[in-house]
Amino acid sequence: MSKKELYFKCENFQKTGSFKARGALNAIKTSLEKGEVPARIVTHSSGNHGQAVAWASRQLGLPCTVVVPQGTPTVKCEAIKEYGAELVFCTPSPTGRKEAADRIASETNGLIIHPYDDYNVIAGQGTIGLELLDEVPDLDIILVPISGGGMTSGIAIAAHHINPKCQVIAVEPVGKNLQESLQAQERKWENPPQFLNTIAEGIKTQQVGHLTFPILCNLVKQVVTVTDQEMADGCKILAERMKLVVEAASGAAVAAALSKQVEYMPGLKIGVILCGGNLDMDSLPWQNI
Amino acid sequence: MSKKELYFKCENFQKTGSFKARGALNAIKTSLEKGEVPARIVTHSSGNHGQAVAWASRQLGLPCTVVVPQGTPTVKCEAIKEYGAELVFCTPSPTGRKEAADRIASETNGLIIHPYDDYNVIAGQGTIGLELLDEVPDLDIILVPISGGGMTSGIAIAAHHINPKCQVIAVEPVGKNLQESLQAQERKWENPPQFLNTIAEGIKTQQVGHLTFPILCNLVKQVVTVTDQEMADGCKILAERMKLVVEAASGAAVAAALSKQVEYMPGLKIGVILCGGNLDMDSLPWQNI
Repeated sequence: MSKKELYFKCENFQKTGSFKARGALNAIKTSLEKGEVPARIVTHSSGNHGQAVAWASRQLGLPCTVVVPQGTPTVKCEAIKEYGAELVFCTPSPTGRKEAADRIASETNGLIIHPYDDYNVIAGQGTIGLELLDEVPDLDIILVPISGGGMTSGIAIAAHHINPKCQVIAVEPVGKNLQESLQAQERKWENPPQFLNTIAEGIKTQQVGHLTFPILCNLVKQVVTVTDQEMADGCKILAERMKLVVEAASGAAVAAALSKQVEYMPGLKIGVILCGGNLDMDSLPWQNI
Repeated sequence: MSKKELYFKCENFQKTGSFKARGALNAIKTSLEKGEVPARIVTHSSGNHGQAVAWASRQLGLPCTVVVPQGTPTVKCEAIKEYGAELVFCTPSPTGRKEAADRIASETNGLIIHPYDDYNVIAGQGTIGLELLDEVPDLDIILVPISGGGMTSGIAIAAHHINPKCQVIAVEPVGKNLQESLQAQERKWENPPQFLNTIAEGIKTQQVGHLTFPILCNLVKQVVTVTDQEMADGCKILAERMKLVVEAASGAAVAAALSKQVEYMPGLKIGVILCGGNLDMDSLPWQNI
């Protein structure tokens, strides 16, 4: 169906069902290695990072509280609870969840693990790039779904050092307008930060982080924008043809790979990051649009 | 969710989306190696075997006709056509499809590849057992969804020769009543042969084959029966937890693995054959029951 040579990195098979396990584990472990033993791990997350922090906390024997916006898919909430974390709901806005997490951390003497604006989280996500380029060293392009930019930054840094010819392309939902800010090398988004109106719950944060933005400005030259319909189609194609369950954010990378925005060239090797597979099985992207 | 030690054989990732590619390729290749070059390959199939024969024929450069019962899922029909085969619909009964295939084969001087009653098909499916026991030599049990019995026979023969302690258990839909015939060492089914009323389109044939029956009588000591609801739940669990798309017949093996009919014992290693992943994405088992 596509002549393009695609190499998939299946983070839907990762612990907790998404790449977020990498950054969370690295951030908490790094803190422990420095001799800091927090009384509690706290995070705010639209879901996948929350599961990851809950899992990583349990792996390292620490109690954990996860703040999630009201309306988060049941399957994600259940998973967080199954990983042993306490779940706290907040108003569904970037500000609301940050305030709730800050309050809990200060009340419990806890350590907040930010979903992307943390160099140890960025480094953890970067291992995706290390592994992918270890398997396919001569990739020309890596397509990375972008939200706060932790994964994209991490992979871009890894790629830049391993194979500088490899170009990391960020894949965004409609309305994020990342290219505009990257080109201006300046944050062009309106404040306060908001969530995008997209089915891709994992990449609905409009603004990238303050630590990730300069890295992205340096290393990411192209942005591909995809619609919800394209993401849903991407998920469906992957389920039909590759028998893989991936969430809408992964469908975005598939959509970009199949789109004309990423041109076919004979021999061009394209990495596609399937960032996660946490779907509510009663409400699938292609049935929900 | 289960303490059981399960090893999955993911034939949903196999060429054509199911294990059937193995038997079809082996049967046609064996015929060619004997110096027979049929004018056409013909088969009748509820879908997966049809796709497999179409694919194998194209691999070997032979034209192909596939007879399928009316009502076969669109995704399977489209796949057969994409593999370059001609598609012919027949009345949806075991007799109807056999008659149509026989007629076409005699008109075209074609070679019929039977879905299971062919020793070369059985041998091809048996390679599943070879590969699985190569990876996990000390399996105690292998759970195999059964229809005509080609895959179950092939795996049972392989297991018997590699690790005679490994017990192959057939997993059937309600109404097949395989155990009764196996115990009597006699075909207890009523004729004419019929299809079972089950969501598992891949294992709806009630009677096992005439070549496979004696093998099954010899080598299969236990049958587990699962309901449509259990199969659907099995598919859903696999999609949620393992991010794998499997069809209802595979869900049957998962259901058996989780059921009390296969008891938990510490250290017991259980192989689970995920025989295929060809689902209509607009009508998923757990939404369709």
